[in-house]
Amino acid sequence: MSESATVPAAIGQPLDGSPRARVLVAGASGLTGALAARLVWNHPRLELTAATSRADAGRTLDELHPQHGVPLALSELDLAGADDVDAAVVALPHGAAAPVVAELRGLGALVVDLSADFRLRDLPTYERVYAPHGAPDLLEGAVYGLTELNRERVAAAGLVANPGCYPTAALLALAPLVEAGLCGDAVVDAKSGVSGAGRGGADFLDVVENFKPYGVEGHRHAPELAQELRELGHTGNLTFVPHLLPIDQGLLASCYVTPTRAIDAPELVALYEARYAGEPFVRLVARPPGVRDVRDTNSAHVHVAVDEGGRLLAFGAIDNLWKGAAGQAIQNLNLMLGLPETEGLR
Amino acid sequence: MSESATVPAAIGQPLDGSPRARVLVAGASGLTGALAARLVWNHPRLELTAATSRADAGRTLDELHPQHGVPLALSELDLAGADDVDAAVVALPHGAAAPVVAELRGLGALVVDLSADFRLRDLPTYERVYAPHGAPDLLEGAVYGLTELNRERVAAAGLVANPGCYPTAALLALAPLVEAGLCGDAVVDAKSGVSGAGRGGADFLDVVENFKPYGVEGHRHAPELAQELRELGHTGNLTFVPHLLPIDQGLLASCYVTPTRAIDAPELVALYEARYAGEPFVRLVARPPGVRDVRDTNSAHVHVAVDEGGRLLAFGAIDNLWKGAAGQAIQNLNLMLGLPETEGLR
Amino acid sequence: MSESATVPAAIGQPLDGSPRARVLVAGASGLTGALAARLVWNHPRLELTAATSRADAGRTLDELHPQHGVPLALSELDLAGADDVDAAVVALPHGAAAPVVAELRGLGALVVDLSADFRLRDLPTYERVYAPHGAPDLLEGAVYGLTELNRERVAAAGLVANPGCYPTAALLALAPLVEAGLCGDAVVDAKSGVSGAGRGGADFLDVVENFKPYGVEGHRHAPELAQELRELGHTGNLTFVPHLLPIDQGLLASCYVTPTRAIDAPELVALYEARYAGEPFVRLVARPPGVRDVRDTNSAHVHVAVDEGGRLLAFGAIDNLWKGAAGQAIQNLNLMLGLPETEGLR
Amino acid sequence: MSESATVPAAIGQPLDGSPRARVLVAGASGLTGALAARLVWNHPRLELTAATSRADAGRTLDELHPQHGVPLALSELDLAGADDVDAAVVALPHGAAAPVVAELRGLGALVVDLSADFRLRDLPTYERVYAPHGAPDLLEGAVYGLTELNRERVAAAGLVANPGCYPTAALLALAPLVEAGLCGDAVVDAKSGVSGAGRGGADFLDVVENFKPYGVEGHRHAPELAQELRELGHTGNLTFVPHLLPIDQGLLASCYVTPTRAIDAPELVALYEARYAGEPFVRLVARPPGVRDVRDTNSAHVHVAVDEGGRLLAFGAIDNLWKGAAGQAIQNLNLMLGLPETEGLR
Repeated sequence: MSESATVPAAIGQPLDGSPRARVLVAGASGLTGALAARLVWNHPRLELTAATSRADAGRTLDELHPQHGVPLALSELDLAGADDVDAAVVALPHGAAAPVVAELRGLGALVVDLSADFRLRDLPTYERVYAPHGAPDLLEGAVYGLTELNRERVAAAGLVANPGCYPTAALLALAPLVEAGLCGDAVVDAKSGVSGAGRGGADFLDVVENFKPYGVEGHRHAPELAQELRELGHTGNLTFVPHLLPIDQGLLASCYVTPTRAIDAPELVALYEARYAGEPFVRLVARPPGVRDVRDTNSAHVHVAVDEGGRLLAFGAIDNLWKGAAGQAIQNLNLMLGLPETEGLR
Repeated sequence: MSESATVPAAIGQPLDGSPRARVLVAGASGLTGALAARLVWNHPRLELTAATSRADAGRTLDELHPQHGVPLALSELDLAGADDVDAAVVALPHGAAAPVVAELRGLGALVVDLSADFRLRDLPTYERVYAPHGAPDLLEGAVYGLTELNRERVAAAGLVANPGCYPTAALLALAPLVEAGLCGDAVVDAKSGVSGAGRGGADFLDVVENFKPYGVEGHRHAPELAQELRELGHTGNLTFVPHLLPIDQGLLASCYVTPTRAIDAPELVALYEARYAGEPFVRLVARPPGVRDVRDTNSAHVHVAVDEGGRLLAFGAIDNLWKGAAGQAIQNLNLMLGLPETEGLR
Repeated sequence: MSESATVPAAIGQPLDGSPRARVLVAGASGLTGALAARLVWNHPRLELTAATSRADAGRTLDELHPQHGVPLALSELDLAGADDVDAAVVALPHGAAAPVVAELRGLGALVVDLSADFRLRDLPTYERVYAPHGAPDLLEGAVYGLTELNRERVAAAGLVANPGCYPTAALLALAPLVEAGLCGDAVVDAKSGVSGAGRGGADFLDVVENFKPYGVEGHRHAPELAQELRELGHTGNLTFVPHLLPIDQGLLASCYVTPTRAIDAPELVALYEARYAGEPFVRLVARPPGVRDVRDTNSAHVHVAVDEGGRLLAFGAIDNLWKGAAGQAIQNLNLMLGLPETEGLR
Repeated sequence: MSESATVPAAIGQPLDGSPRARVLVAGASGLTGALAARLVWNHPRLELTAATSRADAGRTLDELHPQHGVPLALSELDLAGADDVDAAVVALPHGAAAPVVAELRGLGALVVDLSADFRLRDLPTYERVYAPHGAPDLLEGAVYGLTELNRERVAAAGLVANPGCYPTAALLALAPLVEAGLCGDAVVDAKSGVSGAGRGGADFLDVVENFKPYGVEGHRHAPELAQELRELGHTGNLTFVPHLLPIDQGLLASCYVTPTRAIDAPELVALYEARYAGEPFVRLVARPPGVRDVRDTNSAHVHVAVDEGGRLLAFGAIDNLWKGAAGQAIQNLNLMLGLPETEGLR
């Protein structure tokens, strides 16, 4: 890997004629890793140098995920040979990710980590929710990669913690209210397709023609969502309940907010319009969004309304594998490399 | 029809050896009407005298709904020939139901009406939400047929307004709290399968692999739910938002309640256990219910929890066609006829 | 268990007032065993004496299969205490079933076995397709329980081998042709919902929005189907290919037959009408059947046609859990016990 | 439109620096037209000059198909203003397409027509199956656009009749056999997702958890398939039966062939490998293909096997909207314009 400090700057130069940034995807056999590998593979400014998998090394991505059309063979993760890598997307399970991220950072690579390992800034909270942390010293420098909230910090970061899918949808639905100091108590009733839990996560007969809440006793995304809402200034109560949809991809967060002062629909809509004007991947829609509208896209559709009693309703729909995982990872990587944010995501 | 006043009493006698009650189902070609006809057809104490349909008269129920196994031919509704009917289930659209109900009541028949025509006790509210009312003088005598809340009044009623599917699930989830004076502001985030909207209600490609809120501007079941919560003593704010699930049958109401005083999980569970002890069709379950658990049954599964911030969570799962429509209609009819409440529903 | 020879006769007497037949269901935690247990539980002439499960003993059926509404606790299989059992439905995996069946037969119980253990009359074929056989001496006396083909033999049997789901649908679609000597070469392109493979059989993300052939190299139901077609007199070539549908229940066999002589549509339909006249569970339908039409019923819908080139088309649709497994088991059990064939199945 | 004869030649030149070909999509509000518009919109060498729709003119494609991300407004079809169009994809219903195609050809535009209007070379057959023809004089010059069978003729064509989805899958599965003179009698049992029938084609409740044959009396794709097989030299009998899958996208053709001479698996596989070597969009796969493998791709997955009795099995899986419609249209358009065949389709 070249001298790290200069990588993003160099890459940030117009790339016409200049070499593509070299990107490694670690953990590319799973759903999000494979999608990240595909997005890098098809990206006009990136080069996929390796896609790694412990369990499936030797098989091609095409075999495992034929619809992605990536003929590259998966390899064992071998960081000894990775010193010419400019950047990496790490799609390993929590716990397994931290040491790999640390090593990649040590080699000077820019890293977007899809696991939970660097999302929670408070170490005790992380260790209570997940497990002992493998690289706690990197926590402080990690930037939480909800792009639309932290664009400038992401662009300057060496390590981005890519958000969970539930927090992504909920934060996009709630951020304008919180930033404006209007968000009091909030309920987030969220629903996700099965791919949110990864392959092997659900027996067909438990899910088909079914729908149910889960994690009611405390889902791992709850402290992450709470942390980021607090970061934006939220002081109210938060309830978060996920539900499992009988579909493969798609996530909707339905948010119910007691406002800190009365607000009517036109003001509410104007607030969101102003906040998201110019955002390439957030669209304020006039009717409640369906997850099918954003399937296989990096877009978030947001809709807001006020009900008769004055409670605010905010809905955020994303594809959990794209904006909720691999798509947002590439969006962040583009920023980190000085590339146009939408490159390779249309 | 025989002397009406004596019908229920007579029927209430042990029926071993005594004649079955004669039941007409009006509007039997639709999903709920056809299921009601099947339940009457298979009921050990009822006799299906006629299943009517304007559009499909002459065709058999078997043709339209082969899985129900009812070989009876549909007929035009002809109340001139209906004077020997003991009871009727009316499954006509709102507006069309009221005059038919009125005529059946005039003939002395006990009636369970599946439409919205007699659910809202306030005439102006009904006419604002639906349309001019065809039999407003019957409103006062109609009993709202959420069986578990109004069992005795249902048993004594001549006309029962069978509840909507969303209010059924939400009321069963919330009633114990409201009755105990513990229910402050409440959010009901509800999700229903497509059959809640009847046949022809949804293009496959709009629903499959999709999930979305609808009726955000005001669903017709909202005033019905609000009315019944008030009836039970609720004074807080209510937000109700329905969503469309990509499945055929099943409805889940996820309810988020700010309690009027702090309450912990054991007290909450004890409250619900006490309230629903002995209820044949309400089961308090230890884990959040899935709609598949209650598919093709008249059962409601209810689960309650308290989250970290003290907000109460109450979930109610039903099959919208059974407990949310035709099943509850038969449950009510059993009571009206003096039969065991569970007869024909197991 | 009482003296076995007299059981069916005694049971065959009008049961009004007489005791119900005592039935054990072995392997009641799986999909087919649980449905068999439910059908026995709700059956007016049968008494469910025990529902057994090695893995789930102590849990109730209600916990595992709440939609069935059977509150009975599962118990370990203990044949020492089973000597008052009149009959048993065995829903154990192949290999595990044979010794249990043998023991039950030794106790004098009538047995319907849902496994493959007694379907193949040729021991070497069984041992090639499955595994060493645990009770080969029972093979000769076992009756293949496709009720409509072997009604009288089933009624007289002590041990019935309940057919596989694919052979059931294909045989009902083809039998009239084969019996009439009209069936030449045949292709059976069959499609089944996931429950055909039992719980845990399929990752949601491998099945949803998917459809694929499987077992192309040789499915275990192929020799069973071939054996029964030969038994009916078929001498032509047979190709059988199963496919996996992204649904829970339902099976369609599309059969393409080169007739041994030209036959036109009216003759074909007349042949099937005559063959299935009076059959309570086979319906000849005028249009190609959908699996939804037979969902949760013991019915088979059959449709036949002739294409332009003179090839015969025969379609058979069943619910794989009902007519393809537990429903047909009860149909057979009714016959074995001298009860009306449809008892408990409507 | 510039001098038509020179368009493809000019366009065929390396386009780096040269202008993009100007492409109109007629009928862009439907599923296939909208996908064609998206593929043109994102294509590096094409420019989408207009996307037309009678019913939805004025609305944007984004509104109707948000997942495609095409912000262009739909317009009325106005060929007066279309004289600078180099090429057109016509996605109108059969009957409506022919006169529009004729007019576009008159303006010198290259045309790919997605309707059935130019697929059947025999006018009486077309008029029996569909309706009176609106531009019969163009029939002779139209090239049937199964790219892999007619690559050179497509490249030279002014008008390409894009194949139906069923024939595409079946022909790719069968062509190597037919070309080698090995295909005797054939059965094509085909299964398609709902999008094959277009939006509004199916009530959710008729399709979900269902599966059924249709068009058994004669599907419109049958004569098209027969024509093309004959064109390749097939003289055997053909049976074609389509079935409806409860999914949105995906099509599988399962083909059963009596070979004209015995052929074993290695020879069969070698034949297909040789035939499809180098094809960018046809992949011979080692296991039976699932439609999910090709979802949202222009790929066809083909698998072949020989069963015990010597019958040949050939399976072809495609995405009906891509290789079965809009994707193949762009593949053909690329050839017609002298562009790399895969451009804009990866």
